[in-house]
Amino acid sequence: MDETITLSLDEVRDFARRVLARLGLSARQIGPVAETIVAGERDECGAHGIYRLLSCAQTISAGKVALDAAPMLHDTAPALARVDGNRGYAQLAFEVGRPVLIEKARACGIAALGLNNCVHFAALWPEVEALARAGLVAFAFTPSHAWVAPAGGARPLFGTNPIAFAWPRPAVDPFVFDFATSAVARGEIELHRRAGKPIPLGWGVDPEGQPTTDAAAALAGAMLTFGGHKGSALSAMVELIAGPLIGDMTSAESLADDEGTRSSPRGGELIIAIDPAGFLGAATAEHLARAEQIFDGILGQGARLPSRRRYEARARSLANGVTVSRKLYDDIATYLD
Amino acid sequence: MDETITLSLDEVRDFARRVLARLGLSARQIGPVAETIVAGERDECGAHGIYRLLSCAQTISAGKVALDAAPMLHDTAPALARVDGNRGYAQLAFEVGRPVLIEKARACGIAALGLNNCVHFAALWPEVEALARAGLVAFAFTPSHAWVAPAGGARPLFGTNPIAFAWPRPAVDPFVFDFATSAVARGEIELHRRAGKPIPLGWGVDPEGQPTTDAAAALAGAMLTFGGHKGSALSAMVELIAGPLIGDMTSAESLADDEGTRSSPRGGELIIAIDPAGFLGAATAEHLARAEQIFDGILGQGARLPSRRRYEARARSLANGVTVSRKLYDDIATYLD
Repeated sequence: MDETITLSLDEVRDFARRVLARLGLSARQIGPVAETIVAGERDECGAHGIYRLLSCAQTISAGKVALDAAPMLHDTAPALARVDGNRGYAQLAFEVGRPVLIEKARACGIAALGLNNCVHFAALWPEVEALARAGLVAFAFTPSHAWVAPAGGARPLFGTNPIAFAWPRPAVDPFVFDFATSAVARGEIELHRRAGKPIPLGWGVDPEGQPTTDAAAALAGAMLTFGGHKGSALSAMVELIAGPLIGDMTSAESLADDEGTRSSPRGGELIIAIDPAGFLGAATAEHLARAEQIFDGILGQGARLPSRRRYEARARSLANGVTVSRKLYDDIATYLD
Repeated sequence: MDETITLSLDEVRDFARRVLARLGLSARQIGPVAETIVAGERDECGAHGIYRLLSCAQTISAGKVALDAAPMLHDTAPALARVDGNRGYAQLAFEVGRPVLIEKARACGIAALGLNNCVHFAALWPEVEALARAGLVAFAFTPSHAWVAPAGGARPLFGTNPIAFAWPRPAVDPFVFDFATSAVARGEIELHRRAGKPIPLGWGVDPEGQPTTDAAAALAGAMLTFGGHKGSALSAMVELIAGPLIGDMTSAESLADDEGTRSSPRGGELIIAIDPAGFLGAATAEHLARAEQIFDGILGQGARLPSRRRYEARARSLANGVTVSRKLYDDIATYLD
């Protein structure tokens, strides 16, 4: 086991902010990017915590993020808006677009926000959770880099193409899920490769398109989607609606744009928000209360309720702080030297 | 092999219309219901062709469809509408709501239509395909009857909860998919039971919650979702957004409402439409053309393009008519006696 250190969330925030400042990121971007990293540690999603500062450093040193990006809002239709991130991090673009999306969803009943030309290093659940806390039902989608083969194929075409969803619950934390449409995260295969461990069949194919348990072969070949042809169909949907539909890149275009620098994916993100009151009017509270039967039905049989583990972790972290690897912390701290 | 007969699509339509009339369905409902059955045969989706007239007969004889239902449109917000199907078939409710949905999507950029209080016996692809032919990106969702256990559980809670999607393609048929979030259709397990064949592990659990290869045990226990916890999360999403969000029943409520009559599910359906021009304006054609790279990338590696098989079948059927089982045809024809 690694040696660990315990940090308060304020210490995580301060550490992330100082590192990002040293990397040259503008103050305006540092705020929302650091909050996303704090949220990752807080919810015990280690892969989305301070570990991601390494990706930020990599992407910034490759010149693939505009350090002082100023997102630009475009109001394109009564229920649509786009924010051009101007090659900055998606977090700031979302911060610019969020109030507009909320206002349009409340005014029209449903609305969508396209984030364009943004660098993506984080999960999507912070975005949809924030919208559900504003009382909206929310969906988010983004392509990534072309690492994943379509069902029945053997060559990378799709990104890991996550889908996130959030539902506002009366009095308790929103119901949220956020998953890659690939069988697993690419980082999971990386971890197996580093550990010299075989991967299960179904995660990837080798460069000849053959099923493989060799992590390095799968990374050189193609990852597979979850759920066979159904997961593959959903991955194609994400490519379309968070790519060309909003005038942004596909995962293949994003990978080409990366020029081998192993930077974070750049491209678009589509966020849809629905105001339950738009459909339900005065009966909104009654039907949101009725929806609780679905969660009761999941928990009542001991089944898994997505996001519950994260909220439990969050309560622990808020009370006791978080534990991170001493080596990881020290590695990142070298950027402060 | 069954003896078969060949029918033109006009003959299928005429047969379906005559049977539905004899069953007492109003002329206004017969039109769209028969077209859906024709579409099923035409695309060689046998389970959604004239076979479904048996479900219609069952549901009508159980008194679970309002024969002369008159759907009522409610314009609830600038980008939302609901159609109360008044216990009639969803096809007529969609016909009433479709022009309003298209108009709202074009005016606002995105819009959603909730169909309420409808009987559902068909696939969702006809709805989303129709919207894509109007130039829109479309999504559709509906709960069904509570037959499917959540991931990690063993008791039925979700319906088979399909998700359908369509994307307009320049000059060619839309890209469309439509799949159950259950591992397989319930009818597939029924077919295995009738044939005395085992089912693969992963399709269902027995009444004690144990994995089973016994089709009858799975039907008595619970079906499983596709794709493990990810498919289960999507199924929960469908329950929420096509149930309480539009003020309609969950799959558990629909099954209770069925009172053991084995009728078609009754409840809601949510349809979302996005106008690409709302995001893209004058650049719409350029980006729709760019989206073709994704389809080229799928087909270029010999992978499966959802909906392609159906369109090939459609071309065959339009040229040569369709082949149906003589016994099935005769069984249904008894309703005409």
